[in-house]
Amino acid sequence: MKAAFKENRKKGLTIIDLPKPKISNNEILIKVKKAAVCGTDIHLYEWNNWCENVNAKNPMIIGHEFSGEVIEIGNNVKSIKIGDKVAGETHIPCGHCEMCKTGKEHICENMQIIGVHTDGAFAEYVTIPESCAWKLPDNIPYEIGAIYEPFGIAVHGLYKTTITGKDIAITGCGPIGLFAIQVASAGGAKNIFAIDLNDYRLKLAKKMGTNIITINPKKESVVNIVNKYTKNKGVDTAIELSGSIIGTQTSFELIKKGGKIVLIGLHSDKVPIDFVNNVIYKEATIYGITGREMYDSWYKATALIESRLVEPKKVITHHFNLEEAEKAIKTAQQGNCGKIIIDIE
Amino acid sequence: MKAAFKENRKKGLTIIDLPKPKISNNEILIKVKKAAVCGTDIHLYEWNNWCENVNAKNPMIIGHEFSGEVIEIGNNVKSIKIGDKVAGETHIPCGHCEMCKTGKEHICENMQIIGVHTDGAFAEYVTIPESCAWKLPDNIPYEIGAIYEPFGIAVHGLYKTTITGKDIAITGCGPIGLFAIQVASAGGAKNIFAIDLNDYRLKLAKKMGTNIITINPKKESVVNIVNKYTKNKGVDTAIELSGSIIGTQTSFELIKKGGKIVLIGLHSDKVPIDFVNNVIYKEATIYGITGREMYDSWYKATALIESRLVEPKKVITHHFNLEEAEKAIKTAQQGNCGKIIIDIE
Amino acid sequence: MKAAFKENRKKGLTIIDLPKPKISNNEILIKVKKAAVCGTDIHLYEWNNWCENVNAKNPMIIGHEFSGEVIEIGNNVKSIKIGDKVAGETHIPCGHCEMCKTGKEHICENMQIIGVHTDGAFAEYVTIPESCAWKLPDNIPYEIGAIYEPFGIAVHGLYKTTITGKDIAITGCGPIGLFAIQVASAGGAKNIFAIDLNDYRLKLAKKMGTNIITINPKKESVVNIVNKYTKNKGVDTAIELSGSIIGTQTSFELIKKGGKIVLIGLHSDKVPIDFVNNVIYKEATIYGITGREMYDSWYKATALIESRLVEPKKVITHHFNLEEAEKAIKTAQQGNCGKIIIDIE
Amino acid sequence: MKAAFKENRKKGLTIIDLPKPKISNNEILIKVKKAAVCGTDIHLYEWNNWCENVNAKNPMIIGHEFSGEVIEIGNNVKSIKIGDKVAGETHIPCGHCEMCKTGKEHICENMQIIGVHTDGAFAEYVTIPESCAWKLPDNIPYEIGAIYEPFGIAVHGLYKTTITGKDIAITGCGPIGLFAIQVASAGGAKNIFAIDLNDYRLKLAKKMGTNIITINPKKESVVNIVNKYTKNKGVDTAIELSGSIIGTQTSFELIKKGGKIVLIGLHSDKVPIDFVNNVIYKEATIYGITGREMYDSWYKATALIESRLVEPKKVITHHFNLEEAEKAIKTAQQGNCGKIIIDIE
Repeated sequence: MKAAFKENRKKGLTIIDLPKPKISNNEILIKVKKAAVCGTDIHLYEWNNWCENVNAKNPMIIGHEFSGEVIEIGNNVKSIKIGDKVAGETHIPCGHCEMCKTGKEHICENMQIIGVHTDGAFAEYVTIPESCAWKLPDNIPYEIGAIYEPFGIAVHGLYKTTITGKDIAITGCGPIGLFAIQVASAGGAKNIFAIDLNDYRLKLAKKMGTNIITINPKKESVVNIVNKYTKNKGVDTAIELSGSIIGTQTSFELIKKGGKIVLIGLHSDKVPIDFVNNVIYKEATIYGITGREMYDSWYKATALIESRLVEPKKVITHHFNLEEAEKAIKTAQQGNCGKIIIDIE
Repeated sequence: MKAAFKENRKKGLTIIDLPKPKISNNEILIKVKKAAVCGTDIHLYEWNNWCENVNAKNPMIIGHEFSGEVIEIGNNVKSIKIGDKVAGETHIPCGHCEMCKTGKEHICENMQIIGVHTDGAFAEYVTIPESCAWKLPDNIPYEIGAIYEPFGIAVHGLYKTTITGKDIAITGCGPIGLFAIQVASAGGAKNIFAIDLNDYRLKLAKKMGTNIITINPKKESVVNIVNKYTKNKGVDTAIELSGSIIGTQTSFELIKKGGKIVLIGLHSDKVPIDFVNNVIYKEATIYGITGREMYDSWYKATALIESRLVEPKKVITHHFNLEEAEKAIKTAQQGNCGKIIIDIE
Repeated sequence: MKAAFKENRKKGLTIIDLPKPKISNNEILIKVKKAAVCGTDIHLYEWNNWCENVNAKNPMIIGHEFSGEVIEIGNNVKSIKIGDKVAGETHIPCGHCEMCKTGKEHICENMQIIGVHTDGAFAEYVTIPESCAWKLPDNIPYEIGAIYEPFGIAVHGLYKTTITGKDIAITGCGPIGLFAIQVASAGGAKNIFAIDLNDYRLKLAKKMGTNIITINPKKESVVNIVNKYTKNKGVDTAIELSGSIIGTQTSFELIKKGGKIVLIGLHSDKVPIDFVNNVIYKEATIYGITGREMYDSWYKATALIESRLVEPKKVITHHFNLEEAEKAIKTAQQGNCGKIIIDIE
Repeated sequence: MKAAFKENRKKGLTIIDLPKPKISNNEILIKVKKAAVCGTDIHLYEWNNWCENVNAKNPMIIGHEFSGEVIEIGNNVKSIKIGDKVAGETHIPCGHCEMCKTGKEHICENMQIIGVHTDGAFAEYVTIPESCAWKLPDNIPYEIGAIYEPFGIAVHGLYKTTITGKDIAITGCGPIGLFAIQVASAGGAKNIFAIDLNDYRLKLAKKMGTNIITINPKKESVVNIVNKYTKNKGVDTAIELSGSIIGTQTSFELIKKGGKIVLIGLHSDKVPIDFVNNVIYKEATIYGITGREMYDSWYKATALIESRLVEPKKVITHHFNLEEAEKAIKTAQQGNCGKIIIDIE
């Protein structure tokens, strides 16, 4: 089969031919239909510090956002059958640690990640544990199936706080930020402040729903605009998706007294925070968020997507073939894009 | 001044002339513009057991949902000035009990209610404590101001649980039920099951937003319809506003495992509940709700109303003059109506 | 092996010889050391309506509270090894339903219960799925291991609300009630009102910790005593474990405004509740509770037991041999007892 | 009357004679019996940047932790009478802002602080608003009354999370840290890690309850010790009271996955935080805390103190006369102390 392969611990990616993978008793074999590019794939392509820190496997097939058809199932598999249309949960929890045994599998103490620690889905076939398969209904196209996973992150983050009637700032309008705007809009947020340095993304952001105010901090004062709309109160909630020091500090400044911050974007360094003025005196609450609740976020995402309360398709801006995987990643890297789909079949 | 007066502890209501009321240091005098009819006014009109149980004042001017213009303020009043446009919070908490001192003034241990324990607002003028006045912006008409109070009950109820993407059943589609549907719709509920025995109200209910399924239990099986839409799971949340035994029991049956019930409607008797199957085995959570959080519900209601996420005007079906107060109450009583406004000026 | 066997759908229990059970790939075989008698065992002994309602298996070995040594493991078992000392979780969730996939396995939509739907532990050997085994440390005796399961119910209930400095009423002082008193006392409750009709149990209750006020409603007014201690406020939380109509109604009356009720005891009928005065006007919150969170309650129970913050041994009042299983159940049935242990080895 | 007076914006404090203060309609006059020294008093004594930042009044009588007898009441005062024994809440909220009107008076947008923005209590008499008086029962001595306020901060912080059976780290063992240890111990914490650089304070910490492990980071590895006790998991909750960068960073490192941090100590600078590893991947929750909930924390503190679940007296190490106010502050400043009482009468 064809696969986008990471051959060594240097920058690059190769399309090669590999044998079709074999499944164990608890696994299923999926014929991949659509995959999507994530920031993680950029790290792996570049093979930067992040890869060493998370102990990424090498060599390996990359890719972890995907959907496809089940064509083979292991002996112990009960809930999935051949022919099922599925999306993949990226995280493979151990099932035995305290986190796994208390409903927090998504922060398992021994987590393996598909396309990081096991062979991924930028390939014609991929194997995953039965427990990582999410059944899709017939009326959901595969390209939407491929983005349930990143959409679920936005869902997980937004549902930490109240949305309806609230002022929400979203720092960082990459694909997850765009999904976050959709969820906020579906939930009846009052004002959604979409903040990014890239005008292409702000233009996309504006189309994600209603009551969206886009702000480019290079051109305008975020604080002034938010103050104007909130009568100098600040926002109820900030969703931090930039992963930058300045974006994160901005999110702390923007919240009102009693406000909430959801941290999702990953920083490459420590972030200096004025806790006294922005957390303690405000009695703010800060939530760290990673991945998706398994599978609470998937149920919530499904409710929103299948009932058409959101339109995740609007976030998709580019399509590439599997042979163009490197080009897809480079397009993601340069930033003038929403979600990028790799059409595998 | 003209006023709708309850002269004695018998059925009836009289329009009479009374002296304009005088204010104390902490009070304001309001020229009433619009008032609205509540179920409580029906109790008072009938003078039934409820009135004796809550120790309603008599004789007294009735009416407690209202808006108007401030024309006089007491010596200690600081936050309100003459000329302000205000809506009235009905509940006058003592300010000194444990509930008042822990942010729960709305369940004060020594509560007085305007139009029940003090002279009300079906009159040309009414006095209220400064602390019961809610300032309205210029662009909100007085008739909308008059219904912030009952709208706030719906807000208080709906915000106890998650709305976005959830299946919500509302048993009882009187005015608060209709407001509840608006809030659920604004918040992006998945399916809103509007349940009432009265087709007039169900027809109104249908117009309150999107994703609304109306059910008349006299004609259809509520459980069957809810099961069809929820794949036999049941709803995430039931909002009980019927105050009837059968409506309440239905709300307990409709919720799924892990579901929530918000009880708002007042029953005239005990309600037999199958706790084992509908609460314990389901691990349900039940919230009792009364009035509005002071003033958290008002802030939330204001965010929804002023940003036009809801349209409370749609709930108004009738207008009467102050002289027609009895007719207004009788119209409310017969049920083929939404909210009824009394135009005082 | 010897086993306490339920041969038919009539009252009774027989000690018979049966073949040692065989395990499947995901199961373990346990040499049972200690078991404990639960109210469920009384239902099964009597074979009353409850058994038909839950579709209990017949014929079958009963018993589900137990501990023992692992002597054989299935091929897929990873987290348990031969020689491990374990306690058993009674509930076998399906693993695939919405509840199982959202961290609520304990309210699985397809639950099987050991000793109700599968052969139980009043026997020399029992098989359970790997996922139902809880490892015990060396310094915990088997008799304590046998009562982690019912202790976990008390933990699950008490942790729904704040304990420290709070007034807590516990209606029903059977074994779970006694455990609940221990948890409340360990958590620094202010006053613990232990309510039961049986003086033997009240005498036991008194020994479970500090700040315990025992009340026998046949002899004293529960409301008067609670009012005296709480200055007419009522308790912060009521834990309902009586499963009786009057006990449950009492729990609703005892709570203060803003109070909480945790319903655990199972009723044989509907319970008429004055929602208006005891839930709505009080803005009470009611939680239905069943079993234990898997495995959050186990982690919490373990923290309390292993660090000696509680002393569950104090609840044990009787010991019997396996041959005396019927006598053990009859002793539980007559009520003058705490927890009853069946010493199997 | 004698008073500890801050004459100018330089280091120092003078004991001078001033006229007895006069009350307005909403105020009460208190004959101060006992006062206590707080870190704020050190700032004011030094007149450092903090004073300028909070716009502290000058000249002014300092001191804000106190108790005394009410000897005069204003015309509007209803809940307090002459002869009442009271403790003082330091914070004077405006009563009209959004925070005040939503149950969060303690983070009022226009807060005034007694002894910072109004004349304080290191004096024979002090006036406060009726709403800042907390009635003490006869059996509570005045010196205990004087420390309800700082004790309430510890209560506010600890009640943000679950205490019972949990591992809790407290970074900083000044008086509030010592109170926090008492609350954690009363609430049945499993292990309480008391961390401070000062051995005098650690020795005091050890006496505050049970299950306390003291750690001096100058001598031992905090992480190693916590790992040993928690089997490399980390603590459930960290209460940050050091206000130091290193102490705060330590609190972020110590928590387990899913853990919680309560930030109370005030930093003089920004704190660089590794959000990725200590908040995001852990899915930690961070709560900023300031002052006490008005008056929820007071009710909770009262329940603990009056029922003797805690012994705040153990935190008191020194007594001084009013004339010795400067010496009292210098003693607090050098650190070898718990709470310092100023005996005024």
